[in-house]
This record gives sequence, C-alpha cells and structure tokens, in this order.
Amino acid sequence: MNNAVSYTAEHDRTMHRPRVGITMGDPAGIGAEVVLKAVAEVSVRTACVPVVIGDGGCLKFTADRLGLSSVFESVRYREDLSHDELQARTNAPLVCDLDNINSDVAFGIESAEAGRASAQYIRVGVGLCASGTLDAMATAPINKRSWHLAGINFPGHTEYLAHLTGADEHAMAFIAGNLRIVLLSTHVALADALRLVKRERIRRTIELTHRELQKLGVTRPRIAVAALNPHGGEGGLFGSEEATEILPAIEDCARDGRIDVTGPASADTIFLRASRGEYDVVVALYHDQAMIPVKCLSFGEAVNVTLGLPFIRTSVDHGTAFDIAGRGVAEHSSMVAAILLAAELAESRKNDERRFNEKITVGF
Amino acid sequence: MNNAVSYTAEHDRTMHRPRVGITMGDPAGIGAEVVLKAVAEVSVRTACVPVVIGDGGCLKFTADRLGLSSVFESVRYREDLSHDELQARTNAPLVCDLDNINSDVAFGIESAEAGRASAQYIRVGVGLCASGTLDAMATAPINKRSWHLAGINFPGHTEYLAHLTGADEHAMAFIAGNLRIVLLSTHVALADALRLVKRERIRRTIELTHRELQKLGVTRPRIAVAALNPHGGEGGLFGSEEATEILPAIEDCARDGRIDVTGPASADTIFLRASRGEYDVVVALYHDQAMIPVKCLSFGEAVNVTLGLPFIRTSVDHGTAFDIAGRGVAEHSSMVAAILLAAELAESRKNDERRFNEKITVGF
Repeated sequence: MNNAVSYTAEHDRTMHRPRVGITMGDPAGIGAEVVLKAVAEVSVRTACVPVVIGDGGCLKFTADRLGLSSVFESVRYREDLSHDELQARTNAPLVCDLDNINSDVAFGIESAEAGRASAQYIRVGVGLCASGTLDAMATAPINKRSWHLAGINFPGHTEYLAHLTGADEHAMAFIAGNLRIVLLSTHVALADALRLVKRERIRRTIELTHRELQKLGVTRPRIAVAALNPHGGEGGLFGSEEATEILPAIEDCARDGRIDVTGPASADTIFLRASRGEYDVVVALYHDQAMIPVKCLSFGEAVNVTLGLPFIRTSVDHGTAFDIAGRGVAEHSSMVAAILLAAELAESRKNDERRFNEKITVGF
Repeated sequence: MNNAVSYTAEHDRTMHRPRVGITMGDPAGIGAEVVLKAVAEVSVRTACVPVVIGDGGCLKFTADRLGLSSVFESVRYREDLSHDELQARTNAPLVCDLDNINSDVAFGIESAEAGRASAQYIRVGVGLCASGTLDAMATAPINKRSWHLAGINFPGHTEYLAHLTGADEHAMAFIAGNLRIVLLSTHVALADALRLVKRERIRRTIELTHRELQKLGVTRPRIAVAALNPHGGEGGLFGSEEATEILPAIEDCARDGRIDVTGPASADTIFLRASRGEYDVVVALYHDQAMIPVKCLSFGEAVNVTLGLPFIRTSVDHGTAFDIAGRGVAEHSSMVAAILLAAELAESRKNDERRFNEKITVGF
C-alpha cells in the first residue's frame, strides 16, 4: 500500500517536472563523466526529469572505469521515437542511446568520429525539444577541433543550434546568480569582433535581450551596454565607437521609454555593478569582455544560455578538458548548474506563455 | 621625561620610515578629500612619513567644507627646497604647498587651471624623488580632459611620468594582494591596442616585468602572458596573433631558462589562476583585459604601480569622480592602499639595492 502511494506521488512529480535533455558532448572529453556525476545528484533529480542523450556504451565504459553508478535505463534512439517510448520505467536515470561511437575514440584525442558523434547528440536534442518530447536542453562540451575534423564548420554550440533551428536572431548569454551577460559576438578573432561593433547589430542585440529576458520572467529588464574602449573612450580621446555606434544604438532602443537601456558604461566596473543588482543584464561587446568577469565573479556557477532559440538551452562554462579526461577528477558543478538553470528557465517560460495566453484570451 | 622618551622613539621611527610624496590630483575632483582622509589613518602614519604635494588653500577649504581635520604643517614649495626644510616639526601631516590654484576652480568642473595645477604636483613629486628627498610617490587622480584643456597632451600619469624621468621602458601595472598584472598598452583605443600586440613589444614587456618584479622582492617571478583571442585563438581557429606574435615573444624570453614565462594563456581563466597563486604576475595585452579582472578580483584594494621608473610610484585605481566631488562621500581605501604599497615597495627596493651593493662589495 505504501509503495502504491509512493509510486503515485513520484508519478505525479514526474508529470510536472520539466524534462531536460542532456547531451553527452565530445566522447573523448570529460562530458560523459560530468553528465553521469550530475544526474546522480538529488538536486538534479528533484528539479527535473533528466534524459541523457549520448552513447550508451561510452557512458557504461566511463562509469565502470571511474567507479560511478552505471545503473541507468536505456532507450535506443530512432527518428520516429514517440514521447511515450522515451519514458523511464524505474527511478534510474534515462539514457537516449544513439550507439554512434566505435572503439576508436580514445580519451584526450581529437577525431572526426568524436566530432560527428557529439554533433549528432545536439541534432537529436533539438528534434526532441522541437517535438515537445523535451522541455529544455543542457549541453556538455564539444571539441571544436574534432568538429573541424568532422567537417562541421560551426565555431560552437550557439551557432550550430541557431542553424539547426533557423533562429535568425540569437545570442550567447551567461547567467551566474544576479549576473547576466549577453554577448554581441562570440567565437571570432578580437580584430573581427571589433568590426561587428555596429549600431544595427547592437540595436538588434539589445532588443533580443529585452524580449528574451521577459520570456525568462524579468518583467522590464534593466539593460546596460558595456563600452568598447578604455574608460568608455574618455569622451572620444581613446576611440570613437562609443559615440558613432554604441550610443546611437542605445538611443534607438531607449526612445519613448521603449526599452530600459543605458550606457555605454566603462567595462571595468559595469559587470561588478550588475552583479550587485544595479542592472538585470549587461550587453558585452566581445567574447572575453564577457568571459573574464563571468569567470572572476561566478565562482564556478556560471551557465551558458542561448537566447533566441524556440526552446531553453543551457551549457556548462568549461571545455572538454582533454588533459584530465578519463581520470575521474573532473568537477561536475557547472553541469549541475546548467541542468538546474535549464529546468528553472523552462518553468519560467512555461509560466510566461501561460500569462501570454491568458492575456490573449482576456483581450478577445 | 616621558615626553623626551616618546620624542626620541618617534624621531627614530621617522628616520627609518620611507617618505612618501602624495600628489593631490585634480583640485576639482575627489583628490584633496581622499588624501586628507588617508593621511589621517593610523596605518598610513605608521607605515611612512606622508608628504602631501598640493595646494594648501584647496586642502584647507576641502577640510573645512567636509568637516575633516585641517591641522597640518605647511612648507611653501620652492625649487631649491632642501631636504632639511621639508621636515615636519610636529606630528601633524606635512603639506608641501605649491599655492597654485585661484578661486576659479570649482568642484566637478573641468578647467585648464585645474589641469595645469595637477600636472605641477607630479613634476614637483618627481623632482623630490629624484633628489632623494622622497622615497616614493603615491598619486591621487588627475582629469584627462582638464589636462587636454591645459595643453598637457599625455593620456595619463604613466606616460607623463615616463616622459619626465626619461624612462624608455616603462609599463602600467596593478597589484592587489596576490594578483599582479602588467599592461602591454594603456590608454589607447582598443583597435590601436591590437596593433601594439607585436613580438618585440611583448618581449620587452616580459623582460621589464622580470627585472622590475625582482627589484620589488620577487626573486624569480613566474610570469604568464594572456592570450588575445577567445580561448587563446583555439589553435588558430579564431585569430593568429597567438602563433605569430605572442608565442615567439615568450619563446625568446624563456630560452635557456632565462625567464620563467609561459603562455599565451586563455584570458578568461589566467587572472583567476594567478590570483590563486599559480603565477606571480600576468602580462595583459590591452587595458580592459587587465582592468576587468583587477576590479572584479581586488575588492577595491587594487593599486596602480608604474614599472620602469627610477623610483616607486603608485596610484589609486579610480578617477576624479566629478559627480561626487566636494560632497564628502568619497571612499579613501584605494588612496590608503596606494600609500601603504608605495611604502612597502620602497622598503623592498631599498633592501634589494642593499643586497645588490653587498654582492658588488663581495664580488670585488
């Protein structure tokens, strides 16, 4: 009788928890290890129903080698896999097994096969999110050189996901507690990033930030835009982009109180100010302008979020760490943070959609 | 009798404490306020003999307006002022009064007169350090636009000091506890800073860093050089400067174990690693690459140090803060930190010179 009650309660909770797909990442890196460690955490199992998308053999091999639990339920992936088929029958973590790695993949070695496999996990995750089988996606790291070897010419997850979903407007963002940062550009040389600091691109990124943060539950986000040059250009003494590109973009967006956006703000203090609650989000103008404060202020809790996709996608803030792959010493806190945030944002988005639908109903 | 003993002890301590010149900075900013607050601190008076270089009237006006102690001993500055004349007769802070401001200077307003006055404090400080009357110099902030109005066409203290002392090789550095960062370039637009990322300039900066840190008491400094591009260029995928300029410079310096230097290291983690003690110093490739981690990791305790000058010079890590000038709310912790570090480094340098002289004596 007690068992029956537990089952019902468990079943009920499962029904309401968001289903988060977790891609295994590059099989030669620390992906399988951090994913296995993360789905074993009570916090993760309480917040969501985790569905690992990867290679069952690789997960089993990693678990055995590192002394981690290898008890998981496996469902072989097919293109026409239905929602009902991708369900756990027990309490063990659920693996959606692509069985796409042969024995040639070795820890710490770049290869075309590893690149192809890790890209496939992402494609499957996107399909399951698009069909509504999953509510969100949290991704373990891929290796850009393995992708390169496999002929997958995207610089990272963000660009690949935008391509797969046809998202015209998208941006990489980082969330670490109070601190939210959206990037104007991502994986390009700094010299190229400078050429992307243009009024139109900045305007679109501010608008995207405004729109997406509302979807994530921040009603009227207070946005700050970082400056590009030292001391914000010091009134034109060290660089002109603040006056010619950044300020005009901010003015375009702030006109008539449309968006709450200010700047350009000196980059050396704006991130600290935002982390203290002065702003909800900062638009950073190049990769390292965002990543340096993210790493310095987040204490390992930063989560990468892609804005502009039709579903929630989060990611760890570290790489494949080939130097320590297969040794069992990888820290999984960032993977846990990514899954928990994916679950939380999926909830916020669902609530936002509900509010939106209610408005529509009331409106007509 | 007791008084006589105290006097002797005080006199003895005074004799051995380094004499630190403290320039008042731009009279329209928060300089006078933070200097007055700093020299009132016991920690400052214990660590050094502070000599404020500024305008006596402005200091008195500021003290009266903000309710700070206006008890200080004043010596009118002349070019031929001797070491003996610049001595305090009492325990009150000593002011070297240039009397170079008329009543037209108002808080928060840029002006040529304020620019001229703040530059003169620096010139006097340099003269007193060069003659050995002072052991070190700590500077309050100047306003670059006031300098511009005064026709002083240097982008900041660092470049002006290098000009005044004829220092060919110099660099701006920041010290905050364990974290030391040396900048390859300072107050130039980011686009111009990129053009300065050249093998020869990087090599010279590494060598200067090595030399100067030894003078400051770090026997064999472990130096890391930051990368320029995202993820250190990801093996050439996002930018080539790592391979064409940075690595060759590092190899030039590391050859035969001459200098302990490594890199290029991904900029988003290297500062955090250095702050945890993995390196003694990081060479940063542009202003904000250094300033963002300095502000995020220093908790307001960062001190700006100019390397390559014939004497120690430190500075606060903030600006003139015209928006709060004359209101009494300016935080003086950075000024205190700058003075204390100037005193500490002056001691280290004296010890280093003593060791060097001993070596010479033994050698012959």
